[in-house]
Amino acid sequence: MTVKKKSEYKVLILMGSASDAGIMRAAYDVLNDFGVPVKMAVSSAHRTHERTARLVKQAVKDGAKCFIIGAGMAAHLAGVVAAQTTLPVIGVPIDASTLGGLDALLSTVQMPPGVPVASMGIGKAGARNAGLFAVEMLASGDDKLQNKLVEFRKAQAKKVVDADRKLAKELEKG
Amino acid sequence: MTVKKKSEYKVLILMGSASDAGIMRAAYDVLNDFGVPVKMAVSSAHRTHERTARLVKQAVKDGAKCFIIGAGMAAHLAGVVAAQTTLPVIGVPIDASTLGGLDALLSTVQMPPGVPVASMGIGKAGARNAGLFAVEMLASGDDKLQNKLVEFRKAQAKKVVDADRKLAKELEKG
Amino acid sequence: MTVKKKSEYKVLILMGSASDAGIMRAAYDVLNDFGVPVKMAVSSAHRTHERTARLVKQAVKDGAKCFIIGAGMAAHLAGVVAAQTTLPVIGVPIDASTLGGLDALLSTVQMPPGVPVASMGIGKAGARNAGLFAVEMLASGDDKLQNKLVEFRKAQAKKVVDADRKLAKELEKG
Amino acid sequence: MTVKKKSEYKVLILMGSASDAGIMRAAYDVLNDFGVPVKMAVSSAHRTHERTARLVKQAVKDGAKCFIIGAGMAAHLAGVVAAQTTLPVIGVPIDASTLGGLDALLSTVQMPPGVPVASMGIGKAGARNAGLFAVEMLASGDDKLQNKLVEFRKAQAKKVVDADRKLAKELEKG
Amino acid sequence: MTVKKKSEYKVLILMGSASDAGIMRAAYDVLNDFGVPVKMAVSSAHRTHERTARLVKQAVKDGAKCFIIGAGMAAHLAGVVAAQTTLPVIGVPIDASTLGGLDALLSTVQMPPGVPVASMGIGKAGARNAGLFAVEMLASGDDKLQNKLVEFRKAQAKKVVDADRKLAKELEKG
Amino acid sequence: MTVKKKSEYKVLILMGSASDAGIMRAAYDVLNDFGVPVKMAVSSAHRTHERTARLVKQAVKDGAKCFIIGAGMAAHLAGVVAAQTTLPVIGVPIDASTLGGLDALLSTVQMPPGVPVASMGIGKAGARNAGLFAVEMLASGDDKLQNKLVEFRKAQAKKVVDADRKLAKELEKG
Amino acid sequence: MTVKKKSEYKVLILMGSASDAGIMRAAYDVLNDFGVPVKMAVSSAHRTHERTARLVKQAVKDGAKCFIIGAGMAAHLAGVVAAQTTLPVIGVPIDASTLGGLDALLSTVQMPPGVPVASMGIGKAGARNAGLFAVEMLASGDDKLQNKLVEFRKAQAKKVVDADRKLAKELEKG
Amino acid sequence: MTVKKKSEYKVLILMGSASDAGIMRAAYDVLNDFGVPVKMAVSSAHRTHERTARLVKQAVKDGAKCFIIGAGMAAHLAGVVAAQTTLPVIGVPIDASTLGGLDALLSTVQMPPGVPVASMGIGKAGARNAGLFAVEMLASGDDKLQNKLVEFRKAQAKKVVDADRKLAKELEKG
Repeated sequence: MTVKKKSEYKVLILMGSASDAGIMRAAYDVLNDFGVPVKMAVSSAHRTHERTARLVKQAVKDGAKCFIIGAGMAAHLAGVVAAQTTLPVIGVPIDASTLGGLDALLSTVQMPPGVPVASMGIGKAGARNAGLFAVEMLASGDDKLQNKLVEFRKAQAKKVVDADRKLAKELEKG
Repeated sequence: MTVKKKSEYKVLILMGSASDAGIMRAAYDVLNDFGVPVKMAVSSAHRTHERTARLVKQAVKDGAKCFIIGAGMAAHLAGVVAAQTTLPVIGVPIDASTLGGLDALLSTVQMPPGVPVASMGIGKAGARNAGLFAVEMLASGDDKLQNKLVEFRKAQAKKVVDADRKLAKELEKG
Repeated sequence: MTVKKKSEYKVLILMGSASDAGIMRAAYDVLNDFGVPVKMAVSSAHRTHERTARLVKQAVKDGAKCFIIGAGMAAHLAGVVAAQTTLPVIGVPIDASTLGGLDALLSTVQMPPGVPVASMGIGKAGARNAGLFAVEMLASGDDKLQNKLVEFRKAQAKKVVDADRKLAKELEKG
Repeated sequence: MTVKKKSEYKVLILMGSASDAGIMRAAYDVLNDFGVPVKMAVSSAHRTHERTARLVKQAVKDGAKCFIIGAGMAAHLAGVVAAQTTLPVIGVPIDASTLGGLDALLSTVQMPPGVPVASMGIGKAGARNAGLFAVEMLASGDDKLQNKLVEFRKAQAKKVVDADRKLAKELEKG
Repeated sequence: MTVKKKSEYKVLILMGSASDAGIMRAAYDVLNDFGVPVKMAVSSAHRTHERTARLVKQAVKDGAKCFIIGAGMAAHLAGVVAAQTTLPVIGVPIDASTLGGLDALLSTVQMPPGVPVASMGIGKAGARNAGLFAVEMLASGDDKLQNKLVEFRKAQAKKVVDADRKLAKELEKG
Repeated sequence: MTVKKKSEYKVLILMGSASDAGIMRAAYDVLNDFGVPVKMAVSSAHRTHERTARLVKQAVKDGAKCFIIGAGMAAHLAGVVAAQTTLPVIGVPIDASTLGGLDALLSTVQMPPGVPVASMGIGKAGARNAGLFAVEMLASGDDKLQNKLVEFRKAQAKKVVDADRKLAKELEKG
Repeated sequence: MTVKKKSEYKVLILMGSASDAGIMRAAYDVLNDFGVPVKMAVSSAHRTHERTARLVKQAVKDGAKCFIIGAGMAAHLAGVVAAQTTLPVIGVPIDASTLGGLDALLSTVQMPPGVPVASMGIGKAGARNAGLFAVEMLASGDDKLQNKLVEFRKAQAKKVVDADRKLAKELEKG
Repeated sequence: MTVKKKSEYKVLILMGSASDAGIMRAAYDVLNDFGVPVKMAVSSAHRTHERTARLVKQAVKDGAKCFIIGAGMAAHLAGVVAAQTTLPVIGVPIDASTLGGLDALLSTVQMPPGVPVASMGIGKAGARNAGLFAVEMLASGDDKLQNKLVEFRKAQAKKVVDADRKLAKELEKG
């Protein structure tokens, strides 16, 4: 389930460029899978800084509980959002240059003291974990969501065991 | 305020080595300043892995809402804790080798998909932000704490302005 | 010469933290040496983002022709300023973490296309060059300033020659 | 519009190798789009160092106001040009080795104090920003160009909003 | 020869994800070539941490003499295994992110003092060497295996000489 | 216990320069603590390459079961030793330049396939772990040594607990 | 011209693996183009260390004046050769892992004091420059070769000018 | 022995800044120890580029056979010299920033094809090896110098053996 009315979302996913959508979709899908209402939008820290500020303020009014922010290169967007809210901000560094995302990682994670950003890993794995981390935060005091998380963990453990069995069979065949 | 009864804490701060206490104290102090009950302990991912698992389980029973984990070098502790709980885990990479903390940062932040760790920056700035991020999470649905966060932001903005005035005076004197 | 009236400055030097003043002073001193009116202030991209925006707008009104921005760690300040003006923005990455300023460099220089920041090198050398680069920009159509630049280049060339002679003498002595 | 007479250009774009033209074209196109007369040439810091010096001197005579220099690997060309002029020199590090352009970035940005080079980011994004930064410098005292910059900023903000809408539609469809 | 009965293996190869099998196969093949009984399995440090612990304990009971552990990104698996056994643990960092395996290398090799992991190089070359290193350990007091190692070294030296001759012929032809 | 007769050692510790002795002593002390006879010597891969070859051959004759090799910068010594023996070679990268030991780490760990070196972490922590890893290898089939390892693990776990208690007391005092 | 009799070569090019031949061929071709007799062979620092030593000694007897050594990963070959001769040794780091050749570069260039290796850049550009540097060394006291070098420099300068003209034409067309 | 008449030198050591003299002295001392006439001077690639060109031309006239060039940060000096001569140019990267000399190393070693620079390691070790490499080049056809090199190698091997003995004695004492 995504957004029914515009105001019905608990997480706002923002990305600096539409070219980041392929990556950030991983966060969006996780939240949808957990039934968490989510809104995903494109807004740049630099090219549309005022609109970004408006989106942040609107999200707070709309009842959002946290932000997931994806950006590449000198990834300022997560920090810029964190400057404008006391809600938790999760950053996803995106590999959008020739440096393998190291630029985006350091620009996201090395926040000066006082305005925290919680960084995930680079790229799709990080985006997926951002979605899961948001669920973990929202599950505080929400037993249903907490149970879903426990089920999710069990399911992914099962996938590992299944993969192990498949590998064992392949090895047996030689 | 710290811990009155052993079970009265909302955040468990763990560090891999007692030598990390100087850094992790920054997280502890923030939480104390905000009046969030907190417990801080030393337990290693490798040298006391079973005890670490027990501490995590105990913390969940004791009502902890999140973890702040500091570790240096091949910093596995945050990931090891995250593997054993669906509560949010915040990692603080610590500069404990000759590589400026890059080893701890990558070991903390580059978690494979499925088990998220939220990484802060390296060292004391990161530890301080870990405390603030924990407060931001706990402030969800707690207006008093939310207000404290807003006041904190105002106070630190004022410090910037004060520093600016002090610098202006120094420049005037030449 | 620095600022007589508050509005009489051509360059606004901003830094994210008062602890950067020791570095950014190098830019300030260069501009003073060249007789360029300059204002230097502290304002954070994250802790005082609205005040930063006001300072930028005020500087444009005050007739500033360019900005020199120093920041460390995830150095967003130069990008944040560049987002709010079409005046040239020069960034000075500052070594304020355990990573030797690589974080600040990448956060400053790797700006996404559309909103440029001109990065200097890390630290005091970069701050000094930022001052000189500002002078070079301002010297366009200002023969007096252009001449000063030529004299400056000659003077620093002479210093190299003097250093060479001093070394030669030391080597002669053995 | 490009160059009508050889002497009619305000910006000289130089690159160390013809293989850099695909990248540097981004700077050239920006300047053309803004109607700034520009000349683009190939000349190496090492293979044609005397010719490079002549081109720099000629550009100054021809009324050029600044230089945009692209080079890869041990990218010396921007520094070599900066050594021979007091006009502003903008450097574009190009990814031309196996190190993702880190070599070119450090060779361009880490200029010793006294002879500044303003570095943009690595590659095409950097080249595009180099063109924009040159326009920002040239727009000082040129209201028409300044207006074009403001329009450009608005247009690129609109593109972000358009991309956002497109994404929203795609998400609605699922 | 691989495993006849489940308990008949001297080396347990573990990998964090089935996607690492293509790399870890190189270790498996070396051990098979040397006639060392080996078991290869998938088990994650984070997604199946309890199962991993069980596999390690079972392997010790089954008579395993050492572990070869492959993992990518924040590669915790080798450290997690080493925490649970005093048998030698060999780590193979796998390139599974955008950072060329540097994250996995540092997460594997930079173990804090007290719980060693022996790291090989990144990827397939490292996996192959892990197999050879395990053979070297097992060859202690096993003359037959020691002889095989000597023969292996001779054979690979011969391959170098053969490659040299082939190159010489190609050069002769021009 | 160290060496009684020259031939009575199971581990040969070699370092490329006497200046590495302060680091490599950590390996030597571990082996002494475990009662493993050990010889420690200085011999360079480059300055005394023939003597290094002789020392390796002599060690094999003297009954050494493995090598621990420490070197800094372009650390070739471990690879050079590994080329001359099929006994296990453990490498310890030493921070002996301005690059924090990254040069030594990569020169040690990135061995091409065919001739393995088992790398520990950089510096004293790595040297200590090298000693422990050698003990782990030697403990295969040596119940007494195996028991010592188990006791060692318990003792170091106890140290963590003791440190935890000490910290708890300090926190109670405030 | 290559080698007529086996002993007629002034430069011995060695590479650690036949897979490096595509890169090292660039050095070989340069030397052939300058008419310098050259031998190119494969021999590993680790897999055929004794043969490598013999090839070095034979080359000295055969009248070789310098060595060009290409190797990837933990590139020890240049250092191993330099340890066995006082003739100049030129190293070419090869990108043969996932680290872009940074491992090979540091393993080649960071030689401890006393046994120098002259490193070129990574890969084909480095191999080509290795050939040119060898020619520069051999041209000392050989006017004919010196003249060829001067001609070569002129020819490559001309290529830059030609490329410039071609670009100019393309730009004119638009 | 240094320079008697100004023109009597075989090696010209140039450094970009007098602050590099402490490092470059290591090259100078080696050459003096070997009795090779040497001149050492300060001249910047950027601040005194024309003087640098004159010094290079003069050195060629004075009979210099090679250049040793030390520079830090964006170290262009070696490349700038190499562009102006076909004599061999040896580069010494100097750690003069916060990046541990990585900037100077890449700026020195990653020369584009066509104009080679032979890079030594970073700092004093590199400077010392630069002196030795120059001696190795000059020793071609100079039996006396060649013998000195052989003696030097023996002497430094003896130092290693002496250091080994000293360590052995210290270990015996405990």
